[in-house]
Amino acid sequence: MNPPLPFVEFRFKQYNITKGGNMGKTKSLKLFLVVMLVSSLSLNFFFIFRVFLVGDQLSWSRRAAAEAEEVAAISCSGHGRVYLDSFRVDADKPPVCECYACFVGPDCSQTLTDCVADADGGNPLFLEPFWMRNAASSAVLTAGWHRLGYSFSDGSFISEELEKHIRQLHDIVGNAVTQGRYIIFGVGSTQLLNAAVHALSAQNSSSPANVVASIPYYPIYKQQTEFFRATDFNFGGDASLWRNNSDATTSLIEFVTSPNNPDGQLKEAVLHGPNVKYIYDRVYHWPHFTAISAQADDDLMLFSISKITGHGGSRFGWAVVKDENVFQRMTAYVSMNTMGVSRDTQLRTLQLIKVVLKDGGKEIFDFGYTTLRSRWEKLNETLSISKRFTLQEIGAQYCNFFNKIRGPSPAYAWLKCEREEDKDCYAVLKAAKILSRRGSLFGAEEQYVRLSLLKTQDDFDILVHRLKELISEGGAIPMAEM
Amino acid sequence: MNPPLPFVEFRFKQYNITKGGNMGKTKSLKLFLVVMLVSSLSLNFFFIFRVFLVGDQLSWSRRAAAEAEEVAAISCSGHGRVYLDSFRVDADKPPVCECYACFVGPDCSQTLTDCVADADGGNPLFLEPFWMRNAASSAVLTAGWHRLGYSFSDGSFISEELEKHIRQLHDIVGNAVTQGRYIIFGVGSTQLLNAAVHALSAQNSSSPANVVASIPYYPIYKQQTEFFRATDFNFGGDASLWRNNSDATTSLIEFVTSPNNPDGQLKEAVLHGPNVKYIYDRVYHWPHFTAISAQADDDLMLFSISKITGHGGSRFGWAVVKDENVFQRMTAYVSMNTMGVSRDTQLRTLQLIKVVLKDGGKEIFDFGYTTLRSRWEKLNETLSISKRFTLQEIGAQYCNFFNKIRGPSPAYAWLKCEREEDKDCYAVLKAAKILSRRGSLFGAEEQYVRLSLLKTQDDFDILVHRLKELISEGGAIPMAEM
Repeated sequence: MNPPLPFVEFRFKQYNITKGGNMGKTKSLKLFLVVMLVSSLSLNFFFIFRVFLVGDQLSWSRRAAAEAEEVAAISCSGHGRVYLDSFRVDADKPPVCECYACFVGPDCSQTLTDCVADADGGNPLFLEPFWMRNAASSAVLTAGWHRLGYSFSDGSFISEELEKHIRQLHDIVGNAVTQGRYIIFGVGSTQLLNAAVHALSAQNSSSPANVVASIPYYPIYKQQTEFFRATDFNFGGDASLWRNNSDATTSLIEFVTSPNNPDGQLKEAVLHGPNVKYIYDRVYHWPHFTAISAQADDDLMLFSISKITGHGGSRFGWAVVKDENVFQRMTAYVSMNTMGVSRDTQLRTLQLIKVVLKDGGKEIFDFGYTTLRSRWEKLNETLSISKRFTLQEIGAQYCNFFNKIRGPSPAYAWLKCEREEDKDCYAVLKAAKILSRRGSLFGAEEQYVRLSLLKTQDDFDILVHRLKELISEGGAIPMAEM
Repeated sequence: MNPPLPFVEFRFKQYNITKGGNMGKTKSLKLFLVVMLVSSLSLNFFFIFRVFLVGDQLSWSRRAAAEAEEVAAISCSGHGRVYLDSFRVDADKPPVCECYACFVGPDCSQTLTDCVADADGGNPLFLEPFWMRNAASSAVLTAGWHRLGYSFSDGSFISEELEKHIRQLHDIVGNAVTQGRYIIFGVGSTQLLNAAVHALSAQNSSSPANVVASIPYYPIYKQQTEFFRATDFNFGGDASLWRNNSDATTSLIEFVTSPNNPDGQLKEAVLHGPNVKYIYDRVYHWPHFTAISAQADDDLMLFSISKITGHGGSRFGWAVVKDENVFQRMTAYVSMNTMGVSRDTQLRTLQLIKVVLKDGGKEIFDFGYTTLRSRWEKLNETLSISKRFTLQEIGAQYCNFFNKIRGPSPAYAWLKCEREEDKDCYAVLKAAKILSRRGSLFGAEEQYVRLSLLKTQDDFDILVHRLKELISEGGAIPMAEM
């Protein structure tokens, strides 16, 4: 007899040597076969149980799931990312890596030695590693028939489940009062800025409301208010210029950004009086960026998913509002402008917030804070060897969320060129291959620039590298020493 | 010994017969064990191959896929739908059915006999069955780290792959020229209406542009233009009132909607001259709704995914534009307003368009046309037994897409109450438990109303039922006879 499998044959021969004898051989062979059979059958039962009883088999969702995993498995060497909708040479080919700045090649493995450190934009990619670690819990499968209609079952454009989870998020972080407040969704907080300006402007007033902010302020306040110049509002510039304004009939709308973009300071309103209304931009009021010392309870507060979970591309923000009339006017604005926010995005945001909530926010805020804290320390250390550049000062503060005193971890560096001849700080940095955002855009002097600390670790490392080169007076440091 | 499987027992017994004796029994037992082992091992190999080599095993995407299938499997009796983000009594419970109008109960199986037929809104749910049939190809799994950043790799807010597929879609349908044209994405065509008005308004002109449309027109043109009343445009009402306008310095912006909402007519511009600019609202220019007789080639055309695939909730539209300056101004509007369109929605829209394209649009447009055509015929038949109500007349026309003459299949019925005493047609229908949209909203007389034919089959059936009751002079017809 010749057993068909070499493995079985080997065991049979081995047994011959140790035992000997014809009957012993037969018995031990039988025993061996029985053991093998039992093991093999057990394995089969395991598989059958797994496949048919645990419900391991997916049906219609499988293609989408497999495609997402296939794309995610494409390597971009950690210096780029490939998405389902990345460019494809043709439809049957897999998508191509999108390399981060300073990296090229099909798998982003080649470094460009003379590239520019782009610290201009605010792409919140520092949180990407968190989402890769939480891949299973954060994925969302959207069925083809998901919410075709315009309205939810209550007739609104707002997901009740998402609103509930947003309130829970504020509760666990303790950064804002939402009980008894209205919530409005927007296509990013960007849409809500102008919705709020619109809602707070006096209708049919003889003179338009002046929209103001204290310097340095987020450039969009000015750009957007001027772009959508309406009959009932216009941009009035620096808030402090209106401090001694005796004309109490002029309506004023003050943007108060706390923590502030660009400098991370905890700002308070500059103007007071019965003719002043406020829009509190609270998008950075999260434990990544600042100590949470109290629940904010302003009349109108704006938040954005971009600065909490990092999903800037999803375009989702919300406003927390006390006054019913303001709520109605903002809701009307969003309806008339875009008929609400994408229901696909509302579904995804719900899942992202569920992931944040599952451990009370501990993992994401720890990760965000630790990352930004270490970047801030590294940047301070890099600049400390010279007096040419200084950074804003932010103190340590007790944080109710972390239950400890925490050091600063701002989203941006507000850099000042200290030398007399470096009046145009943007140009100084640009010559050193660093792209920053001009101080004048924030209403400030050109001695200032904003550097984003929110991007990928690669982006930050290249920024530090270029700053080191600049401080060493133009001495080029090889990229490998980054 | 009782071998567990009949097949093996047979072989064993057969062997006994031919050989016999004790040694024969042992040998046959051995043979049996070997056969069993080989079979079992083969099955092991099959499972191992399937699980580890065919890649049948999903890893991080499995939870999301399984959750989507679990929710999709909840029955709402065909009279409702349940979504991943439907209301949950508590987090661990499955979501609850959202019943269509006139149905209630945990599984929407109970009919409300005295409910109102809601033909007001335009929720394009008539296409839902198509997406349920194409569940596998249309599902999208969005990874937690999908496009956190604001911009695509080319720095824009627009997915290059999606733009490419939109151009392909126009090419296969033959409804619009896109070669050499710019494409802008918007949060629904809603956002693009005002973006276009903004872009076409003369900047810094002494007098604002007048935005006009010929009656009956889509109400949003008026509502939106008045809501966002800016210094450089206002609503000028009925286009034909401006026909003899001798003042060629007044800028005019005419909305031309073809096929028209509400009446499905193929409209042309009313105004002409060097001071007139046009916004062609082409959202209904698809084979569901109208014959495609030529590729539209207007200066500025608007489209919306809502009226092609039925995904109104996704808020995705686009403009096809000839002039570079207009393109730049519209792009600036969308950037300043919302920083582009949700990247989640762009990903999903790409997948939906891929499904439409895979058979050259045949299945979806056939299905859409057949559904709306049969509704239109049914409605005509229902109303034909009385002279109290009339519908708009639309002729049959040769369609280049279907390569045949096709009858009308409009998105809406533009109903006229013909009786002298039925001046307020909306009220007449409301008294008969039919919710319509008032003619005055479209700039027309109150003898007219719009009825939506785009909703679910249930919605349409209930509408027909209520109309039958009304025509039979108030005689209530049991719902079961619908």
